[in-house]
Amino acid sequence: MFTSIHEANQSVIAEIKRARPCLVDVRPASACIPALREGRVLLHAGTAIHWDQMTGPMQGAVIGAAIFEGWAASKQEAGQLAAAGGIRFLPCHDHSAVGPMGGITSSNMPVLVVRNAAQGNLAFCNLNEGIGKVLRFGAFDAEVQKRLVWMREVLGPLLSLALRRLPEGVDLTALMAQAITMGDEFHQRNIAASALLLKVLAPELAACGAPQAAKEDVLRFLGRTDQFFLNVAMAYCKCAMDAAAVIQAGTIVTAMTRNGRDFAIRVSGTGDRWFTAPVNMPEGLFFSGYGREDVNPDVGDSAITETFGIGGAAMVAAPGVTRFIGAGDFSDALEISEEMREIYADSNPMLPIPTWNSQGASLGLDVRRVVETGITPVINTGIAHRRAGIGQIGAGTVRAPLECFAAALEALAELQGTC
Amino acid sequence: MFTSIHEANQSVIAEIKRARPCLVDVRPASACIPALREGRVLLHAGTAIHWDQMTGPMQGAVIGAAIFEGWAASKQEAGQLAAAGGIRFLPCHDHSAVGPMGGITSSNMPVLVVRNAAQGNLAFCNLNEGIGKVLRFGAFDAEVQKRLVWMREVLGPLLSLALRRLPEGVDLTALMAQAITMGDEFHQRNIAASALLLKVLAPELAACGAPQAAKEDVLRFLGRTDQFFLNVAMAYCKCAMDAAAVIQAGTIVTAMTRNGRDFAIRVSGTGDRWFTAPVNMPEGLFFSGYGREDVNPDVGDSAITETFGIGGAAMVAAPGVTRFIGAGDFSDALEISEEMREIYADSNPMLPIPTWNSQGASLGLDVRRVVETGITPVINTGIAHRRAGIGQIGAGTVRAPLECFAAALEALAELQGTC
Repeated sequence: MFTSIHEANQSVIAEIKRARPCLVDVRPASACIPALREGRVLLHAGTAIHWDQMTGPMQGAVIGAAIFEGWAASKQEAGQLAAAGGIRFLPCHDHSAVGPMGGITSSNMPVLVVRNAAQGNLAFCNLNEGIGKVLRFGAFDAEVQKRLVWMREVLGPLLSLALRRLPEGVDLTALMAQAITMGDEFHQRNIAASALLLKVLAPELAACGAPQAAKEDVLRFLGRTDQFFLNVAMAYCKCAMDAAAVIQAGTIVTAMTRNGRDFAIRVSGTGDRWFTAPVNMPEGLFFSGYGREDVNPDVGDSAITETFGIGGAAMVAAPGVTRFIGAGDFSDALEISEEMREIYADSNPMLPIPTWNSQGASLGLDVRRVVETGITPVINTGIAHRRAGIGQIGAGTVRAPLECFAAALEALAELQGTC
Repeated sequence: MFTSIHEANQSVIAEIKRARPCLVDVRPASACIPALREGRVLLHAGTAIHWDQMTGPMQGAVIGAAIFEGWAASKQEAGQLAAAGGIRFLPCHDHSAVGPMGGITSSNMPVLVVRNAAQGNLAFCNLNEGIGKVLRFGAFDAEVQKRLVWMREVLGPLLSLALRRLPEGVDLTALMAQAITMGDEFHQRNIAASALLLKVLAPELAACGAPQAAKEDVLRFLGRTDQFFLNVAMAYCKCAMDAAAVIQAGTIVTAMTRNGRDFAIRVSGTGDRWFTAPVNMPEGLFFSGYGREDVNPDVGDSAITETFGIGGAAMVAAPGVTRFIGAGDFSDALEISEEMREIYADSNPMLPIPTWNSQGASLGLDVRRVVETGITPVINTGIAHRRAGIGQIGAGTVRAPLECFAAALEALAELQGTC
């Protein structure tokens, strides 16, 4: 089909560039993802994992989701149910979905619906709950439950009403092109994109037929949730990378994810096969009262942003975030992006970065370059407490392990001639 | 009172730093500015000027304001009224106010009310109308009139309802500290600050007792008016500089403004006295169909932003704007801010700029440094068509003329011993 790896990669990259993911709706997860309609099923971050292998935050989120869905009344009941095999666990990535941190998504949680206006495929992601004690970081108490119910009853339905007033949905490429000029790298910093999205949604919310108090609550929540757009960005990246993954050739990474044990990657030339290696520990800055001994190993589907070439690779766009995650100052941000440039095959003409003399964000993470240079992707990440029930304790960076890239390259070499 | 110029300047700078201007209300101009209650009076940008000395955009705005206030029914009638001395013209700056471009402000136009929570003084500025055919650039036709009426009847009252729900108003220092990390320099780029302000106001608008359609219209207008915050930033700077100007000693510039003929500055050590020199012509990029031959000479009170140390001096914070105004790319933006650093005495701890390794924005423009180095302030500016009735035709930069700084330094030398 292709005469060279270069040609195959160019073709994969062209599909990534061609994608135009638009935010079109917010719907209950089970309305979008058929697998969630079949009994007690939860989606999770990373590759397939059993209950007893999950780290604390993911277990905590499972407990929270089981209580939220009415499958259990307490932490104990939920834990027993999960341990007894009463819940089926499926990776988000196998169902056109992604989820930050634990990534736990259940049938009655609202999800963002992102539709690719170019290639037509869909991607889904649950809604950002804000910071602190939140399900994705493994908290599950009454405060978390109350918020989840509000998101199901109020936030999800109102966002749906607002989005459905926009015939084409929200053109996320255009929005992100603006936001990257406003200091977002779309993983640990989404304050601009979140504000720009609110700007688009606010008049539609005002115009929709919902009670005034509900509108006020939704606008207040969106106004204070600076990471609201993270989940949108994740669905955007998943949508674009899935569209490109249709071309099963070349050496471009189409997914990176972590389940708390394994870091896993998919590569264009090997389709749905995962290559894994043990995750690293994130390093960064901690909220007061926490330290390195509390850190959970790297977890979450959010590395889909770095797969696309934003997040850590776009650090130079977001010097405001480098201090927050303990990665230094502007010169350090520039250095990280320059280093990352070495392992991506191209740059993104849709996302020019003013602080990089309008150079586009990196695009097309190439397994060959990672292995040849030994440079592994830098991932900007939230840091969860290792124990279930506590939540976020900081933010920082983590490196992808080299071994999964080496394993992928070996498999690609074995397939030589097929691309 | 002070033993040295340095000590005097430190005291002026301390007052600028101490200021905490908050956006507390939007009110009809005549409710805030007593001079507007006395017959046919208009405020204008720059120092005092007669009708026949005004350049096209300011005359166009006078015509528009006269029609808006019902003093005239046509361009001809308004022009005759003005030429016959039937309108009294007063500088905004003498009435705690500032206005962009023509700066024309009439009694029934709503103005932003900014209150200094530290020193207690007030500052006012009219509301940004958006781009294209707008009064401040000299357009006055039916489209302009319709918008002005809507601003008086809907936008102003709803913003007032929303702002009055916030007990302390909007802390503009905190908001601007966020926005400067998001690529705004607050003169030609305010997209982040405008979005952050919308984020604060949206839930209050939702909650206030206005008709739903009016709320929708206001949110839609705020959402598309990326320069809405410019006028807020101008009132902020005017408020802070007026608070500092109380100390009548030292060599710190407390105002810079242009009436289309003269560039004028006030200096701390010489109080309300203006030092003037002929304005320069802005250079930059033009909207399609326009060119250098159409440019009006430099005009507007908006150079109050550069007086405070943002705008051109903070170009490094806003590399996204440099291409828009034809000032190059990130390295050029950095160079301009580094050059400007030479003529400001201090930096602003409230406005650290991530793209400048968290160095604060410049603060305390020192007449001595300008004259010693020959470096004149760079002002980021909109460009108006020289003829009345057309409007904005581009954006660019312009230098303040050296002569007014030299004249001020001479006057300060004559006063030697008093500071």
